[in-house]
Amino acid sequence: MLVFKALESLMTVNGALPLNVKVLIEGEEEHGGESIEHYVKTYPERLRCDAAFICDTHMPAKDIPALIYGLRGIIYTEVEVHGARRDLHSGTYGGVAPNPLHALTIIISRLKDADGHIHIPGLYDKMRKSTKTEEDFWQQDPLHINEALREEMGVKQLSGEAEYPPLERIWARPTLEVHGIAGGFTGEGAKTVIPAVATAKISLRLPPDLQLQPNEIFTLFERAVKAVAPADVTVTVRKIHAGDGVLVSPDSPPMLAATAALKETYGKDPVLIREGGSIPIAALFDEILHIPVVLMGFGLPDDNLHAPNEKYSLDQFFKGIRTVASFLSKMG
Amino acid sequence: MLVFKALESLMTVNGALPLNVKVLIEGEEEHGGESIEHYVKTYPERLRCDAAFICDTHMPAKDIPALIYGLRGIIYTEVEVHGARRDLHSGTYGGVAPNPLHALTIIISRLKDADGHIHIPGLYDKMRKSTKTEEDFWQQDPLHINEALREEMGVKQLSGEAEYPPLERIWARPTLEVHGIAGGFTGEGAKTVIPAVATAKISLRLPPDLQLQPNEIFTLFERAVKAVAPADVTVTVRKIHAGDGVLVSPDSPPMLAATAALKETYGKDPVLIREGGSIPIAALFDEILHIPVVLMGFGLPDDNLHAPNEKYSLDQFFKGIRTVASFLSKMG
Repeated sequence: MLVFKALESLMTVNGALPLNVKVLIEGEEEHGGESIEHYVKTYPERLRCDAAFICDTHMPAKDIPALIYGLRGIIYTEVEVHGARRDLHSGTYGGVAPNPLHALTIIISRLKDADGHIHIPGLYDKMRKSTKTEEDFWQQDPLHINEALREEMGVKQLSGEAEYPPLERIWARPTLEVHGIAGGFTGEGAKTVIPAVATAKISLRLPPDLQLQPNEIFTLFERAVKAVAPADVTVTVRKIHAGDGVLVSPDSPPMLAATAALKETYGKDPVLIREGGSIPIAALFDEILHIPVVLMGFGLPDDNLHAPNEKYSLDQFFKGIRTVASFLSKMG
Repeated sequence: MLVFKALESLMTVNGALPLNVKVLIEGEEEHGGESIEHYVKTYPERLRCDAAFICDTHMPAKDIPALIYGLRGIIYTEVEVHGARRDLHSGTYGGVAPNPLHALTIIISRLKDADGHIHIPGLYDKMRKSTKTEEDFWQQDPLHINEALREEMGVKQLSGEAEYPPLERIWARPTLEVHGIAGGFTGEGAKTVIPAVATAKISLRLPPDLQLQPNEIFTLFERAVKAVAPADVTVTVRKIHAGDGVLVSPDSPPMLAATAALKETYGKDPVLIREGGSIPIAALFDEILHIPVVLMGFGLPDDNLHAPNEKYSLDQFFKGIRTVASFLSKMG
């Protein structure tokens, strides 16, 4: 929307665009984005261009413009555990029955411990060493992002791997999160069922620093799940979707044009930061089209992304239009 | 139903009952049975009698009559875990966010390990030593109950504490089972939510051998949950319902009458066994009315108790009526 408004403005003011633009619309991004992945892989020549521009990221605050140089990838999985051939009553069978829900608690707690450490053999084998600049930024946290995170979450202390600074934890470390556990009885009151089957939704966020493909990581994950599963249950692991992470060089001409455009609108140089989320298409452009990817966005931390009362600031919307129009002019 | 038919038959044949009968009907047994507990505790004089008879148990096979001399008690709880003040997106917050679902897997796996051992400090402190007769029966399993359990469950090996015989595990050892875990997303597909709240339904079956009241055990359980919970979440433990276990002496006159009645119908002495389930009213009769409780029943192992296609054998129904009528006559 914001990008279309920028294109419209340029057409209105100048009668023409300052450069050729190909528009690729993704309507399935929250759903794995399989169709667009297929399209990019099948028709790279149709998409041939000098740079890709994606407007889907955030600024740390409304007066701090930002360019994103890193995104984490993701694999989203379903772990299904089978015990007895039918649901059982815990009075009669409790003590000798396999409990798939309990098995899932064993599996998940062994994959990630209470201190936030992920135990998947091989996951960190090729881990890239971070640069001095990155380490300083993460340690010093000049934008006070830690404080913002604590406030947004309403917590006194940030969770996770205490030996890494929080910014490294959300940007450059992998996560393993359980998003839901199904099976048995969760209604009002009491039912003493031991379910025959239980399922957990588990995802991993994958910083590009791991230097592993999502498929390689899925293989490691599946192997780890089976290795830690109790012997009295059978386990299947399904991949629901996957997407790669990306690291972008800040020195390419498109990134320099984006830097200048942001400075024009906000009166200061943008900060170079990462985001912990996943935009798999960014990695795909990098990998298939071999072009620099500019990730610029105007969301704010209190937008309640993917949550109730999600919003978008009108001021940011108008500044965004101006910035994108300026960026395209400079690129032209 | 079966007991009413027995009473009706005696009235029809003899014109009167051979003894005075007080009938107490329980309609909430699967729901905690609070009302009947209140009634028994409030009006013990109305219920004054020489013995209680409960027809709600099983026979190991259709040609093996049985009297139940032990039942496990139960506490049923809900453990609620709170993390951040709202649901979070794992891309933005994964690495620093508390995850209540993950915390539950840590808590539950610490309360009961993969080998079936329950870790609740104090739970076994007063554990009664089993008798030689019991130990021999559990070890030798003369009724081949182990095999029946394996077949009903469709498993090659029985789960649980390997150092105790399976019969001891289902009759005289406590269980800790998770029956359901709510929170986050369990629908089709993928959602990368880190929920603000997650809840687990957890019950314990409590053999009378523990020699602890359900309320004492709830206190130990609550303390253990809080002790093993990760520091970045807050936990509340609620008791949904509780009921005591019971051990019955096999030598009381009512038990001897029941033994004789079963022998009459089935042509052999009943076996003395326990059941792993809970009939809290049995413990209540024992505790409040101080009377012997006869637990006789005609269910069969393949009745699919509390499961789809539950059934009751007509042959057992008719034999049950005859046996109960004979028991009442002998009691008279």
